[in-house]
Amino acid sequence: MDIPISKVAERLNLEEDVLKNAIERRVITLCKYRDKRYLVFKKKVRHVERGTVLFLNERMDVVMGYPKIRRALVLDPTVKKYFIDQVVVEEKLNGYNVRVVNIDNEILGITRGGRICPFTTKKVLKLLNTDILKDHPKITLCGEMIGLNNPYVPHYYPEVDREIYRDESTVIRENLGLYIFDIREGDRSLPVEERNKLLEEYNVPYVKPLGVFNKEEIEEIKSTVVKLDRENREGIVMKDPSMLVDPIKYTTHYTHCQDLAVAFRYTFDLGIHFMFSRLIREGFQSYEFNEGEKEMERRALSIGKSIIYPMVESIKEVARGELITEDFELYFDSEEDVEEFLRYLKEVHISYVVKEREVLKNRIFRVIIGKVYPSTRDKIKSYLGGSLW
Amino acid sequence: MDIPISKVAERLNLEEDVLKNAIERRVITLCKYRDKRYLVFKKKVRHVERGTVLFLNERMDVVMGYPKIRRALVLDPTVKKYFIDQVVVEEKLNGYNVRVVNIDNEILGITRGGRICPFTTKKVLKLLNTDILKDHPKITLCGEMIGLNNPYVPHYYPEVDREIYRDESTVIRENLGLYIFDIREGDRSLPVEERNKLLEEYNVPYVKPLGVFNKEEIEEIKSTVVKLDRENREGIVMKDPSMLVDPIKYTTHYTHCQDLAVAFRYTFDLGIHFMFSRLIREGFQSYEFNEGEKEMERRALSIGKSIIYPMVESIKEVARGELITEDFELYFDSEEDVEEFLRYLKEVHISYVVKEREVLKNRIFRVIIGKVYPSTRDKIKSYLGGSLW
Repeated sequence: MDIPISKVAERLNLEEDVLKNAIERRVITLCKYRDKRYLVFKKKVRHVERGTVLFLNERMDVVMGYPKIRRALVLDPTVKKYFIDQVVVEEKLNGYNVRVVNIDNEILGITRGGRICPFTTKKVLKLLNTDILKDHPKITLCGEMIGLNNPYVPHYYPEVDREIYRDESTVIRENLGLYIFDIREGDRSLPVEERNKLLEEYNVPYVKPLGVFNKEEIEEIKSTVVKLDRENREGIVMKDPSMLVDPIKYTTHYTHCQDLAVAFRYTFDLGIHFMFSRLIREGFQSYEFNEGEKEMERRALSIGKSIIYPMVESIKEVARGELITEDFELYFDSEEDVEEFLRYLKEVHISYVVKEREVLKNRIFRVIIGKVYPSTRDKIKSYLGGSLW
Repeated sequence: MDIPISKVAERLNLEEDVLKNAIERRVITLCKYRDKRYLVFKKKVRHVERGTVLFLNERMDVVMGYPKIRRALVLDPTVKKYFIDQVVVEEKLNGYNVRVVNIDNEILGITRGGRICPFTTKKVLKLLNTDILKDHPKITLCGEMIGLNNPYVPHYYPEVDREIYRDESTVIRENLGLYIFDIREGDRSLPVEERNKLLEEYNVPYVKPLGVFNKEEIEEIKSTVVKLDRENREGIVMKDPSMLVDPIKYTTHYTHCQDLAVAFRYTFDLGIHFMFSRLIREGFQSYEFNEGEKEMERRALSIGKSIIYPMVESIKEVARGELITEDFELYFDSEEDVEEFLRYLKEVHISYVVKEREVLKNRIFRVIIGKVYPSTRDKIKSYLGGSLW
């Protein structure tokens, strides 16, 4: 169906000129997923968040972009100042943000950037009881897709290890899970308890609540962070129980170092702002945790290792003539699903190589995709070849 | 005297429009030092380097900007590829770049940025035999001003410790020296031996030559770097003996870590590109020096410490309500000299506080100036106060 631009402008409460201009600058792009055509906001346009999707269907369904969660660099006094009274502390999972919606009776998985990802969409159907979206078609389930076997943020979580096939001789496991952390309707979030009640009703997995604290109980919140750090987990998101203020986040030393390691493995591809911000977080954390000489030295060593080891590893790989790739091991149900996903990667301009591809028993397709980081390889190669800085 | 813009354009071989435009954009500014008026190029304009100075005197004397020295990230194969045959290795000193010139029979010290610095100018007269510039008024002596007691890059060098006053009860030492590393005439450098001969004739101190190598002798060059690193020194500059190709530089682990420490002490003032580049250098150096587990771990620890210790120190200082300053202890010969220099700092938009000021015996004026880093303090203060990132 063809929808005039004036209708779209009206639906989003944007002026037609602003909309047209954004389309011309390719800030808004037209995408397609099977028979669905939709507009994606690649950047914020006026009040419309980055990642917002508008479906070109009869109702012109809009899925709002998921708002950025801001960060406390120190828990004290930030938490005391920011919250009203109580603070719900939930675990922040290290995966990728997914919005699950029901559009014209079809369940779709939308990435942070606003694309309907075929991999995600298919996995959602297996990981969630989607009846919740049939009964409540207007809500958006916002969650984190985690585990080793996803194509964006591969990070092992023991709790999402699932057997997807077994016979006498083989067990195939997929490490993948989806935990809902927010239910939104328009730009409003359900209060935490209401959210939990609804999700429990449908037996939908949601993020681990770590406790509800009075906003003055900073030491208790700090303890949960220390515990998560020891367990190699990412951090916390703190919420007002009624969701009257936006959530804020705080992350662990472990995750800062993990991020640094990724940043320095792909030295010239990941932005330097990415690494700078992690180092700043470490500085404030070391200060707030009131570290002595020994603890600081331990922190310094792990920061230094996270920087130098992966960088030297990448230089060595390039010196050996290898590609610099980040590898993702993925499981698909059919050859067509594999192909559809590879087409999708091209569409979103991710360069990749297929490193392994095999059909397992029970017609499960196992693929290892290597995401290529071209600048890192080219620059390292050039410097190793004698180029001057 | 008033010089028409067309004359200036002609003198520099620039089109009048280009010159006018650069003046309007304040890329070229008019400055004054006592009775001398001069134009400074704050950025490169066409072929005219940043830091170039044009005096508005009769001859319209031009002092070309000192060109950026490019860097090898690995010595092998860069040195082999870059040089013609022989390589003169000189020590790279960690101070600030000074061009010393004779303009209308006055000796002036010009900074990298192209300003006549009153502190530098006066010290030059004490540290150099300026007869060389009287006999050869067209040359530019390019050197590094080093030592603890300078207002830009305070770094202790034992060899420039000088007694500037002594009586029965007191010894006052100034740690300051100037080493010439290049003699230029227009945009041409004297060949290394000619340079040394001329400087020796006038007994002018010049940078330590560390050896002359065949360009294939990379291991020997590496050894000099290792030795300098152990002595906590900055690095090397490699030159073609005839100066037919531009010099290139290579620096030590020690200096990378020192730089990181400075960058993270003034976290939000020094650019993130500054720190990123130091980390990259460390990666390539660790790779080229073929480090084993132990050496890499040692490197990692010192990198981590250089990042986290000074950052936490700054956070603590801000938490205590202190200013974040970099302190310079300077010696002057008169009250007027102090005042002139403080006026100069204001002119070049350096914010500072005078922390100590005393008249020593023999009318030597000792001043401690604290250069203020405003963003670091403001941002840290704001985050400590609960602002979100």
